Amino acid sequence: MHILITGAAGMIGRKLTERLVRDGALNGQPIDRLTLLDVSTPSRPAGFKGRADCAAVDISDPAAARTAVADTPEVIFHLAAVVSGEAELDYEKGFRVNFQGSYALLEAVRATGGYRPRFIFASSLAVFGAPFPPAIPDDFCTTPLTSYGTQKAMIELLLADYSRRGFLEGVGLRLPNIVVRPGGPNKAASGFFSSIIREPLNGQEAVLPVDESVLSWHASPRSAAGFFVHAAGVDRQALGPRVNLTMPGVCCTVAEEIAALRRIAGDKVASRIRREPDPLIVRMVAGWPKRLDPARALALGFRVEASFDEIVRVHIDDELGGKIPS
Amino acid sequence: MHILITGAAGMIGRKLTERLVRDGALNGQPIDRLTLLDVSTPSRPAGFKGRADCAAVDISDPAAARTAVADTPEVIFHLAAVVSGEAELDYEKGFRVNFQGSYALLEAVRATGGYRPRFIFASSLAVFGAPFPPAIPDDFCTTPLTSYGTQKAMIELLLADYSRRGFLEGVGLRLPNIVVRPGGPNKAASGFFSSIIREPLNGQEAVLPVDESVLSWHASPRSAAGFFVHAAGVDRQALGPRVNLTMPGVCCTVAEEIAALRRIAGDKVASRIRREPDPLIVRMVAGWPKRLDPARALALGFRVEASFDEIVRVHIDDELGGKIPS
Repeated sequence: MHILITGAAGMIGRKLTERLVRDGALNGQPIDRLTLLDVSTPSRPAGFKGRADCAAVDISDPAAARTAVADTPEVIFHLAAVVSGEAELDYEKGFRVNFQGSYALLEAVRATGGYRPRFIFASSLAVFGAPFPPAIPDDFCTTPLTSYGTQKAMIELLLADYSRRGFLEGVGLRLPNIVVRPGGPNKAASGFFSSIIREPLNGQEAVLPVDESVLSWHASPRSAAGFFVHAAGVDRQALGPRVNLTMPGVCCTVAEEIAALRRIAGDKVASRIRREPDPLIVRMVAGWPKRLDPARALALGFRVEASFDEIVRVHIDDELGGKIPS
Repeated sequence: MHILITGAAGMIGRKLTERLVRDGALNGQPIDRLTLLDVSTPSRPAGFKGRADCAAVDISDPAAARTAVADTPEVIFHLAAVVSGEAELDYEKGFRVNFQGSYALLEAVRATGGYRPRFIFASSLAVFGAPFPPAIPDDFCTTPLTSYGTQKAMIELLLADYSRRGFLEGVGLRLPNIVVRPGGPNKAASGFFSSIIREPLNGQEAVLPVDESVLSWHASPRSAAGFFVHAAGVDRQALGPRVNLTMPGVCCTVAEEIAALRRIAGDKVASRIRREPDPLIVRMVAGWPKRLDPARALALGFRVEASFDEIVRVHIDDELGGKIPS
């Protein structure tokens, strides 16, 4: 099996690549080829025995998109995107990459004719815009309040239409907040959800810019990779025409997250969180989906951690070698 | 006031033009200029005293779109589209006109910079796809089952984002089945909703291809024009970020429509309907929205006929000089 991953150098792209290499197979078929694309060249996957092509590519260039699918990869994981904040600040860049880049890739598949790959698209809860019901159902309207969410929702629509017309077999995954992200602090407004766990475990102070009562929807990087792998095998008939799915998550408050950290790592670690409200972040977070009702994804077998404790433990296992640094 | 209408030669475009010329003003401002565009040159509006520019234009050509807004019309009614059936049969043409044409027009407005017209977009109930709840609420998901509906839903998303970013003041109108359409029978799958009223009133036989129990959502051509005029004056604050609105309609069965015709025009006229089921039309109609709950549009002051009797009378008044041909 030949698998293409766009955005392969990003955090989820790397987690997904590692998972595929470790599994060695997808949908019961051995993986003999990986094509890994990103704006900067992804690193060669360690331990992979098959052919790996790693390249720096701008998929919003239609010629590059055609080249990417020229060898007809059976499964395409399309993760490449300009992040939310950047798409809001630079409207043209966001539209070019998030919409036109995705459209170019879809069109490249269609142009091959008769080729019908499984096409897994990284969508986002940002397709939803406040006000929300207490739990957002699968049939809730997509009325985004960011250009990022708009671009993702537009591609969701195309993905469903291309699937219905038989150009490809699309599945769109609306990902939860992914925590705990490995690496250092970043500038994303959602970054604190990871840093309040990651930094204290590393002996560093983290800043909490919102109230502890803030509710959010989470999954680990390990679960995110799992969503993509599972989506590759989901039954088309069971999926039906509504191919874009809200992924399951763990719904909890910041207070509950800190309590989980305290249970697992102790008071000293949990005390390394400094409260420093940031009105801009408070306002942005208030507009994000908090609780969802991902009934369809659960029925289709998508699974996530059972608690935030488990999310913290996944981070310790996968990033800290199973040990809390002393 | 300068008003631009795309799709001005179509049925609703003509009704809207007539209404604007008759009113002589929009939002309390005298109309001194009309730009009427379509793929074939719209006719000069009878009785209009101001400047009227009528031209054949392909708005999916970005240069043509820029020319269309170069003189910064204060209100743009964007009705141009390839119809549902054609967009399904010719995917590329549908996408080029319905998506790329609308996008070109939106982009032409954005490119002018600082220019912020009211932009009224003709959307469709085809943005919804079965299965439906008993009455489709305003916050129901847009999961279309046609390429036409997909293209309309994508432009709805852009319209909302362009409004949010201040590039324009968008309002999207999801139009009901418009009946009774003037003119002869056409090939649209929904054509029978008009022909079972229009042809019998003209002494001709009409074919009913579906069961009389079929439920549908209707408004007259007069109401359709009224929706566009009303949308031009809707308060931006009251509208909020969800700028795409399901229009009110009259919900009734085919049996109720025939009963209305019988009440108004008598048994002899109503007997000119021949039942001849068409499995393709039966299947298509089964997937269409039947009953909606247009709470937001009603709260914003959009109005429609109170009954199907009224819709029949509007047709007799507007198309038959107020008299039933004997």
